[in-house]
Amino acid sequence: MINKLIENIKKTNAPIVVGLDPMMKFIPKHITDKAFAEFGETLEGAAEAIWQYNKAIVDAVCDLIPAVKPQIAMYEQFGIPGLVAFKRTVDYCKSKGLVVIADIKRSDIGSSSAAYAVGHLGKVQVGGNRFAGFDEDFVTVNPYFGSDGVEPFLDVCREEKKGIFLLVKTSNPSSGEFQDQILADGRPLYELVGERVAEWGESFMGDSYSYVGAVVGATYPEMGKVLRKVMPKTYILVPGYGAQGGKGKDLVHFFNEDGLGAIVNSSRGIIAAYQNDRYKERFAPENFADASRQAVADMIEDISEALAGK
Amino acid sequence: MINKLIENIKKTNAPIVVGLDPMMKFIPKHITDKAFAEFGETLEGAAEAIWQYNKAIVDAVCDLIPAVKPQIAMYEQFGIPGLVAFKRTVDYCKSKGLVVIADIKRSDIGSSSAAYAVGHLGKVQVGGNRFAGFDEDFVTVNPYFGSDGVEPFLDVCREEKKGIFLLVKTSNPSSGEFQDQILADGRPLYELVGERVAEWGESFMGDSYSYVGAVVGATYPEMGKVLRKVMPKTYILVPGYGAQGGKGKDLVHFFNEDGLGAIVNSSRGIIAAYQNDRYKERFAPENFADASRQAVADMIEDISEALAGK
Repeated sequence: MINKLIENIKKTNAPIVVGLDPMMKFIPKHITDKAFAEFGETLEGAAEAIWQYNKAIVDAVCDLIPAVKPQIAMYEQFGIPGLVAFKRTVDYCKSKGLVVIADIKRSDIGSSSAAYAVGHLGKVQVGGNRFAGFDEDFVTVNPYFGSDGVEPFLDVCREEKKGIFLLVKTSNPSSGEFQDQILADGRPLYELVGERVAEWGESFMGDSYSYVGAVVGATYPEMGKVLRKVMPKTYILVPGYGAQGGKGKDLVHFFNEDGLGAIVNSSRGIIAAYQNDRYKERFAPENFADASRQAVADMIEDISEALAGK
Repeated sequence: MINKLIENIKKTNAPIVVGLDPMMKFIPKHITDKAFAEFGETLEGAAEAIWQYNKAIVDAVCDLIPAVKPQIAMYEQFGIPGLVAFKRTVDYCKSKGLVVIADIKRSDIGSSSAAYAVGHLGKVQVGGNRFAGFDEDFVTVNPYFGSDGVEPFLDVCREEKKGIFLLVKTSNPSSGEFQDQILADGRPLYELVGERVAEWGESFMGDSYSYVGAVVGATYPEMGKVLRKVMPKTYILVPGYGAQGGKGKDLVHFFNEDGLGAIVNSSRGIIAAYQNDRYKERFAPENFADASRQAVADMIEDISEALAGK
C-alpha cells in the first residue's frame, strides 16, 4: 500500500492528503437542513449530513489528490450512526481510487492491539468466514506501549500489504511535555521513538519506502529536519499545515532529495475553505465543494513552490 | 463518578473490576451455535454471541463487583456490529448499577480529543438536541500528547461528573521501551507522567480521591509502590492480574493505608474461567457464568488476604 500511495502521489504530483474531519459547524445549512428533514435532529441526521458533506468534497477533489485522512474521533462522537458514516466515507474514498489513511491513533497491549489491527486493516474470523470490519489502507498508531503494541499491527500489515503511521512528534502545542523530554543520553524522546520507527520499518519495506511511516507535525519544522535524517526510508505524515499554523516553507525539510518521503495533511483548511476569509467572497455555502477544490489547488501550488525553491 | 466507584467498592468489599474483553475462543459453543443459527456466521452473528456471553457473565457476577471494564478493541474488531454489542454491554452494565470503565485508550490533539470525550463521556449537539454516543462512566486515556490531549476530557468530565484513567505504566512486557526511559533529571518518564496525572487530578477532586485516575500494571509492583506515593489522591486502575502474571501479593503497595486507592482488573481470568485448569473440572462450558462467579470470589479472597497481611 505504500507503493500505491507513492504511485498516487506521483500521478497527482501532489504530496498532500485531505483530512476528512467534519464538524457540524463546517457543514453548510442546506445540507444539514435536508438531512434533518429526512432523519430529524438526531444522531442519524448528523451522520447523514456528514456523509453528504464528505461525498460532495470527495467528488470535487478526488482527481487532484492521492489520499484522504478521515479522523475517526469526529465520527465516533456521534456514536454508532457516526461510525456508520465513517465506514461509508472510507468505502466511498476507496471506490474513487484514493488511499485511505484512517486517523485512529489506536494502540494497546498485544492482544488488544491485535484486535484493533484486525478490525481496521485486516479480517476477523467468524466461524468459517472472514470479514473486514473497517478495511482502511493505513492507520495511525500511538507508540506509548512499545513493541508489543506495534507489532500486532505489523503482523496484519504484512498479511494485507497495508501500513501504519506511528506518532513520533505530534503537531499540538503541548506535544513537548512528554515527547521532548531529554533522555539520559542527551537525545529527546521523540528522536528515540523515531529511531525505533526506522528499525520497525526496515523489516517491512516497499519498493523505496517502508510500510511503517511516522507522524511529525508541520508546526515543528526543526525537529522534522532532524527526524527526516533519523528515518530516511520512512514516509512522514505531516499534520498541522494551514489551520494549525504550518506553512509551505516549513515543510521542505520533511521531504527527501527524491522529492518524496512526506505527505502533508490539511483538514479544515480544505473542507471548510468556503468559511475562510480567503475564499468566502468567491464561494457561497452552496458551492462549498468548489471552494475545497480551489483550496486543494492552492495548497498544491504552495507546497510545490516551496519544494522548487528548496 | 469517582465517589460512586468508591461507594460500590466499599459496598461489595471488592476492589476489583471485571474486564469484559470477549474473544470468540472464549465463548462456549452453545452460545455461538445459537447466535450463528439466528444471524449466520457473520459480524452480526459474532456480535450477538458476544452480547449473550457478556450478559450471562454480568448477570452471574454483578452483585459481587463494583465495576466492569469493557475493552473496546475486542468489539471494534467486528466493525459496526461489534460496536453495537459494545454499547449494548455498556448500557446493560449501567442498568445493573455497575460503574463502567471503558478501556478505549483514546487521545489526540485538542479538537479530536474533545470529540472522543464528547462521544464517550458527554453529549454531542445535533441541531437543538444533545445525544450521548456511548455514555460510559470512565474512559482510559493515552498521555502521549500532553495537556492539550488530556484537558478536553477533563472539561467534559467536569460537566458530566465523570472520570478518566491515564496510562502511566502499562502492564505489557515492552512498556519500558519508552515509559522507563531515564530523563535528564534522573527520573523515569513514567514518574514524570505520574506527577502530571497528580497535578491534573488536584484540580478536580471527589470526596477523597480525584476524578483523574491512573493505569499502572500489576506486573510492575515496585514501580507501583513509587507511583502510589507520587499520586496519593489518584485512584490506580491495575491491569495485569491473573493471565498476565500479576498476583495478590504484588498488589498491596498499589493501595493506600485507607484500604482504597486501587482497583484491580482481571479479564480472561474471570470471563474465560471455565477454560482454566483451576475450574474446568468443576464447571462445564454450559456453566461458564458460574465459573466466572467462582473466579470472582476467589480473586476477591486472594486480594483481601494480601491486603490483610500488608
